[in-house]
Amino acid sequence: MLKKFQISILGSSAATPTSLRHTTAQVLHFHNKLFLLDCAEGTQMQIRRFKLPIMKFDHIFISHLHGDHYLGLPGLLFSYHLLGRDKDIHIYSPPGLKEIIEVQFRISGLKPVFNIIYHELKKAREIIYEDRYLTVETMEMEHRLPTFGFFFREKLLEKNIKKESIVQYDIPVEKIPEIKKGEDFVTPDGKVIPNSRITISPSRPRSYAFCGDTAYTEKFLDQIKGADLLYHEATFLNDKAAIAREKSHSTTVEAATLAKKAGVKKLLLGHYSARYKEMAEFTKEAREVFPNTIIAEEGDIVKVGENASPA
Amino acid sequence: MLKKFQISILGSSAATPTSLRHTTAQVLHFHNKLFLLDCAEGTQMQIRRFKLPIMKFDHIFISHLHGDHYLGLPGLLFSYHLLGRDKDIHIYSPPGLKEIIEVQFRISGLKPVFNIIYHELKKAREIIYEDRYLTVETMEMEHRLPTFGFFFREKLLEKNIKKESIVQYDIPVEKIPEIKKGEDFVTPDGKVIPNSRITISPSRPRSYAFCGDTAYTEKFLDQIKGADLLYHEATFLNDKAAIAREKSHSTTVEAATLAKKAGVKKLLLGHYSARYKEMAEFTKEAREVFPNTIIAEEGDIVKVGENASPA
Repeated sequence: MLKKFQISILGSSAATPTSLRHTTAQVLHFHNKLFLLDCAEGTQMQIRRFKLPIMKFDHIFISHLHGDHYLGLPGLLFSYHLLGRDKDIHIYSPPGLKEIIEVQFRISGLKPVFNIIYHELKKAREIIYEDRYLTVETMEMEHRLPTFGFFFREKLLEKNIKKESIVQYDIPVEKIPEIKKGEDFVTPDGKVIPNSRITISPSRPRSYAFCGDTAYTEKFLDQIKGADLLYHEATFLNDKAAIAREKSHSTTVEAATLAKKAGVKKLLLGHYSARYKEMAEFTKEAREVFPNTIIAEEGDIVKVGENASPA
Repeated sequence: MLKKFQISILGSSAATPTSLRHTTAQVLHFHNKLFLLDCAEGTQMQIRRFKLPIMKFDHIFISHLHGDHYLGLPGLLFSYHLLGRDKDIHIYSPPGLKEIIEVQFRISGLKPVFNIIYHELKKAREIIYEDRYLTVETMEMEHRLPTFGFFFREKLLEKNIKKESIVQYDIPVEKIPEIKKGEDFVTPDGKVIPNSRITISPSRPRSYAFCGDTAYTEKFLDQIKGADLLYHEATFLNDKAAIAREKSHSTTVEAATLAKKAGVKKLLLGHYSARYKEMAEFTKEAREVFPNTIIAEEGDIVKVGENASPA
């Protein structure tokens, strides 16, 4: 049974919100855990609006310290304080966020009733989070401020031995660890039972690459190779490539080109300039380069590892 | 012709937003000017949602530095920067806000392209803003942090002389200033024309008292006497009076009692605790003490000086 691994889009506007779109925030729902990826203004309202359990976030990843990626964090933390949160919260971001948060708690005369653990990100290709099922690795974006991407990689689990095989071949308990590692089983009378007949292979590990604000770059191409889902910003359509470069952002075609070179299974676009009202052209342009492209809209849920091509 | 003087409610939730309600922000529309009163998280989105002209705000009044009253300000200022605002902006608040804003501009690597002029509020009963038609005076609230209310008072305009009277009595130009001040006109042959016959009285000056977070207090009672509209927080229903006191907030009955003692013409309640979903009880409790009470809900527009009693 495949455990949950999906993204909820809370905001997909670049730089400034519009009457229809919030700025960047995503929720990663992995097994029974919720992670927050960027936390723009209004994120706590969006979490409530989409009926996500606001108290379940323990790890918040902030790509960089432009307002449209972190301004919702002070409000979320103040709300945690008022709601009496007592669990630690971990915040991963480039240096500076601690100062921004602490000055506000100080001036408002509040001392958070929970621990805030700041993890300052300084370099790429570092594993910054790990649990039994998942690792999170930093990637280096190309932007005007130090900016990180986050690569969420499911761990390869051990094989499971079929219960009926244990009974059928009378497999002793001490043999189980090596069979789980892939060894065949040899019966007391010397008969070899192939590993594949007595085990169930774990599902293929899935992966999600979150590449927030960045100009086109291949600096992290090797890290995202073969990812199930690549979120890559596409602030502009292709005709604005010069503006994109000037502002250290990307176009549809650039995001799609990177997806193609990396051989990812699906591309998710977001971070659209407020000048665009209608998104059809984003899909169209990107799909000419990389057909399996979808665009992020508020409230969308995208499952990681379900890669049917678009109709 | 009565010039515009009205309030738009952008948020009416206390402390934390809910799925239905933003935290405190109001727009005061006076003649052709827009003032912002408090600026909670999401205010820039609410301004857009209610189709108010976002670039027209030049004066922002922040009652106090709890997050639910100022957290939308950094985002609004970043947006002004990105939208290329060049007009000065004036921000009135208790000390501390400048530090909160400046640390964020510094860390995000941006220097605002417009001037931010901080007016630090330190005492009550001070006129902090004045133009040809309006004054704004501070009031002292009773809260856990230094907190100010704002009293918007229309100026008493001069009388206008009826055009037809000038012709009829051949009033010389040099007499006009004194007639506008209320003097009668004496014709060259000694006939006294009463002032009331030749002038139009200006409309009665209107006033709006914005009393944000506060426990029940009569400290500013004399300042709000006879106001056309009193906004007073009512975080709790009457049965939670003890909690209200403990948290330096007010109940429906307390707000209504103050309205009654001050002889205001209309009471507007807001800042409801997130525990309340249904507002009918707020109206009911307050009207038992002060019948002309209405409650603030997002998107409401309340005209100042139109005081028909509720049906």
